[in-house]
Amino acid sequence: MARGSFSRRAFTASAAVAAFAPLVASVPAGAALAEKSAGKPGGDVRRITLYAEKLPGGQLGYGLEPGKATIPGPLIEMIEGETLEIEMVNNLDVAASLHVHGVDYDVASDGTRMNDGVVEPGGRRIFTWRTHAQGRRPGGTIEPGSAGYWHYHDHVVGTDHGTGGIRAGLYGPLIVRRKGDVLPDKQFTVVFNDMTINNSTSHEGPHFMAKIGERVEFIVITHGDFFHTFHIHGHRWADNRTGLLEGNQDPSRIIDTKITGPAESFGFQVIAGERVGPGMWMYHCHVQSHSDMGMAGVFMVTDENGNVPGHPMDMNQANGSAPEHSMDNMHH
Amino acid sequence: MARGSFSRRAFTASAAVAAFAPLVASVPAGAALAEKSAGKPGGDVRRITLYAEKLPGGQLGYGLEPGKATIPGPLIEMIEGETLEIEMVNNLDVAASLHVHGVDYDVASDGTRMNDGVVEPGGRRIFTWRTHAQGRRPGGTIEPGSAGYWHYHDHVVGTDHGTGGIRAGLYGPLIVRRKGDVLPDKQFTVVFNDMTINNSTSHEGPHFMAKIGERVEFIVITHGDFFHTFHIHGHRWADNRTGLLEGNQDPSRIIDTKITGPAESFGFQVIAGERVGPGMWMYHCHVQSHSDMGMAGVFMVTDENGNVPGHPMDMNQANGSAPEHSMDNMHH
Amino acid sequence: MARGSFSRRAFTASAAVAAFAPLVASVPAGAALAEKSAGKPGGDVRRITLYAEKLPGGQLGYGLEPGKATIPGPLIEMIEGETLEIEMVNNLDVAASLHVHGVDYDVASDGTRMNDGVVEPGGRRIFTWRTHAQGRRPGGTIEPGSAGYWHYHDHVVGTDHGTGGIRAGLYGPLIVRRKGDVLPDKQFTVVFNDMTINNSTSHEGPHFMAKIGERVEFIVITHGDFFHTFHIHGHRWADNRTGLLEGNQDPSRIIDTKITGPAESFGFQVIAGERVGPGMWMYHCHVQSHSDMGMAGVFMVTDENGNVPGHPMDMNQANGSAPEHSMDNMHH
Repeated sequence: MARGSFSRRAFTASAAVAAFAPLVASVPAGAALAEKSAGKPGGDVRRITLYAEKLPGGQLGYGLEPGKATIPGPLIEMIEGETLEIEMVNNLDVAASLHVHGVDYDVASDGTRMNDGVVEPGGRRIFTWRTHAQGRRPGGTIEPGSAGYWHYHDHVVGTDHGTGGIRAGLYGPLIVRRKGDVLPDKQFTVVFNDMTINNSTSHEGPHFMAKIGERVEFIVITHGDFFHTFHIHGHRWADNRTGLLEGNQDPSRIIDTKITGPAESFGFQVIAGERVGPGMWMYHCHVQSHSDMGMAGVFMVTDENGNVPGHPMDMNQANGSAPEHSMDNMHH
Repeated sequence: MARGSFSRRAFTASAAVAAFAPLVASVPAGAALAEKSAGKPGGDVRRITLYAEKLPGGQLGYGLEPGKATIPGPLIEMIEGETLEIEMVNNLDVAASLHVHGVDYDVASDGTRMNDGVVEPGGRRIFTWRTHAQGRRPGGTIEPGSAGYWHYHDHVVGTDHGTGGIRAGLYGPLIVRRKGDVLPDKQFTVVFNDMTINNSTSHEGPHFMAKIGERVEFIVITHGDFFHTFHIHGHRWADNRTGLLEGNQDPSRIIDTKITGPAESFGFQVIAGERVGPGMWMYHCHVQSHSDMGMAGVFMVTDENGNVPGHPMDMNQANGSAPEHSMDNMHH
Repeated sequence: MARGSFSRRAFTASAAVAAFAPLVASVPAGAALAEKSAGKPGGDVRRITLYAEKLPGGQLGYGLEPGKATIPGPLIEMIEGETLEIEMVNNLDVAASLHVHGVDYDVASDGTRMNDGVVEPGGRRIFTWRTHAQGRRPGGTIEPGSAGYWHYHDHVVGTDHGTGGIRAGLYGPLIVRRKGDVLPDKQFTVVFNDMTINNSTSHEGPHFMAKIGERVEFIVITHGDFFHTFHIHGHRWADNRTGLLEGNQDPSRIIDTKITGPAESFGFQVIAGERVGPGMWMYHCHVQSHSDMGMAGVFMVTDENGNVPGHPMDMNQANGSAPEHSMDNMHH
């Protein structure tokens, strides 16, 4: 598919399968939970291993198993109160690190050179992320909880701010939920990294697929040097913590386009095709030159039978294309 | 008036009249309504025709009648629950379309090439925009209503993202109100389109006029490749859905400057001259090089007699300069 | 310390003292108040004098006394209801002015050339800033109060938008508090002015210091031509008026990174080291090229004994380095 060619032709018949190449399949979220809202872990400590590895074309990625690195790295989820100990294994030939946004960590887990948080090539190091629920301080002010759509990234490759590591793909999404937060059916991560989406080299972004009525969560992260506006066709969300209005008095703006700059992150849930039906719904950076240069993809909403009206396609083939970017190991 | 010359001299005596050239007169909003808050249409369907036409200097515009295209296009207003069927007539010699933000539409009304939504030269096509009120989903989450300060634009001229059409002027404002939303006395639209305001070629933005105490609504839209900060002197608003605090507990930030990027839109209401009095109140992009290059205009607030103290002017002449950018045909 | 070198070495032992050069010491805020929340002034009028002066290296600054100009200018604080009469004395050899954001002022205090608000070299002029509390208008809508993290700047040096004055350093922070707003223990101002922080010429930003548990207020302002994302390590805040959640239902997003553009301003309070402990916590613009070029500094959180674990330093020396950027004259 040619650069920026969101013509009708490109998305029908056999062309559709080719277009699916960068499709990122998602597994249902929270599959291990009996209910559809986030439970309370009661201060549990989990431990995972995260491998920093080389990928083809000079790219770098994080993965939960050796040889399984992806860009973005695995979606990590926590519930307020949990602690996560992440042993990072550096399989690169340069020093790297792991810096996280939003959660609680000592300087030892800051992941910066200044705080001695570098993982040397071939080395290992544990980074500890803690989270807490919202509460009231003795003085009366509210201490916000850790819940949010956050992210993690390298902070040392290339420069002391990790510019080289981030550019090459060393970043990933982190969601911390409050007890009771609504869980999605599917989750998709969009990272505007300089002029790419998720470091895609195909001059277009990944395509996502959901069935009409499914609750779909988007996590949007920006990295690099540029500013963007994330836009999705046919769907809107509230510009607040969860993307969902939190009550009838919630004054948040409802938006379908949001400005975002490097290291910002936000997320939201939509009901696929709600009030608009199945179809090929474009999402893209709305800076005109950015979308024209390929910062765009398609959110495919199928009908109950798995079809997009007017756009026949081979769903089995599409679904199986990129299973490694899942959150299988993250379930709790 | 020279580029960026917001000197005192430029706004006194006879110079004032020349400065009024780009002034956009506004008609009172909601003139057909008995009350000053938005009523409930009860699921009405309205139908209008929108003409895409050539304008002098290579510009393009939308208009409600042949030969009446403006930049921005006509302000379209809806109340949650209404449906609007817009027959677009393409009087250009290139294919064009109509893509809208915020409201409900099937892929057939997406206005993209990918979804076969192009209107060929000389052709016609109906785009259907639906709206709905806020409600609760069966699962308990709140479905946001359609209310918001939105906008519409071409999505196919020049590139598959409408870059050429938007640059030339094919865009306009859309307001969807919730039942009970406060109606303004006057409305002004500011579109930061690349380095212009409303595609003005005069190296300054349009000037707006209101009488002290009038409720004035600004709709601010950004298009193109650049990022901006909208600032207005002497007036502030809440950074939420309506720009008005929605209760004493509304935690929204009060601002007089707001960052904005391509395809974002927001709106707010101010009481002209409230606590600051009549006067020439500048509004501008606050990126220094942008304001210096002419992304600035004046919000003239007159006293009860129609005068701006210290700035004598011929109001009749000013008022009549650009009546075509009105919402006459939109009243309901 | 080399450009962008946030290595461990640079912040230990004797190197630490050198690194403290740009440290801005803060005096406790609200020292004259018996309680720790903002009181009500009952419509008081205060009067101060603000001197616009030359600084070394072609920079310009505002100061509360002759020969005491700083960049940023002095932090000015008001409580809703107060009026401040500022006599500006122009000790420059070019015309300058004083334009303020957020508060109430007549056109005579607009500080623009268009409104005859210029202060000639050697001249004086009084600018009057009024503030008011939130209230309800006769029509029922809420009039927002003046409270906010605002700022002031020149509007005439170089261009009619003050581009030259702002670039050279003629800007400063203004906080207006609502009665009952929580007062901080320390306050730090960060101004992203083009590619500098606070016009620092040292290729790094100022460093700030607080003791663990102290309530620290950051005021973040942007000026110039560029856009930035403010990020601080180990601390987060609510993206609303005060940076503090205003109730358990406050839907505001919790963030540690915020996009910001020219003339925007925001503020927030954090408890130094809360849940993360003492340490060297970096703050920086997260646009990668900006942080790499030096838009970064350190928020040093000491333990109860005044030490940063692992980073021995001479605190007395650090503390005394820049006492002139205080709010001594602003206490009420």
